[in-house]
Amino acid sequence: MKAKVYVTLKEGVLDPQGSAVMGALKSMRFSEVSDVRIGKFMEIELDADSKEAEERRVKDMCEKLLANTVIENYRVEFE
Amino acid sequence: MKAKVYVTLKEGVLDPQGSAVMGALKSMRFSEVSDVRIGKFMEIELDADSKEAEERRVKDMCEKLLANTVIENYRVEFE
Repeated sequence: MKAKVYVTLKEGVLDPQGSAVMGALKSMRFSEVSDVRIGKFMEIELDADSKEAEERRVKDMCEKLLANTVIENYRVEFE
Repeated sequence: MKAKVYVTLKEGVLDPQGSAVMGALKSMRFSEVSDVRIGKFMEIELDADSKEAEERRVKDMCEKLLANTVIENYRVEFE
């Protein structure tokens, strides 16, 4: 089974990497850009007996390792 | 308008960051994990006259800055 995890910074948390990319885009004449936020995207391949078990395990991984829940949100999609 | 850009490593390209995360998950008893691939996820806010113009500009940004098309694939979604 495959899970796709999206980790993004919470609203209000500064995103220096996003600001740097926005600056670079503007310097390349992409002046229409008004905001850039950068997050992580993870594809996880795992074995699970059921959809429910898979969901529970991936959520557990996110809480414990993949996302810093103090400053980040995460979203999981299953295939 | 908002565009979501997903940048992933191409098949066959080594992903040391993904391997490190997989090792960490295994050491935390998530032994069911068989593969982890890590990519980037970007949310870009921009002004555009039309859907077509937006698509063209974001594709241009990906080709020129956001993705290294030698080793990475990208996918764009519009909202």
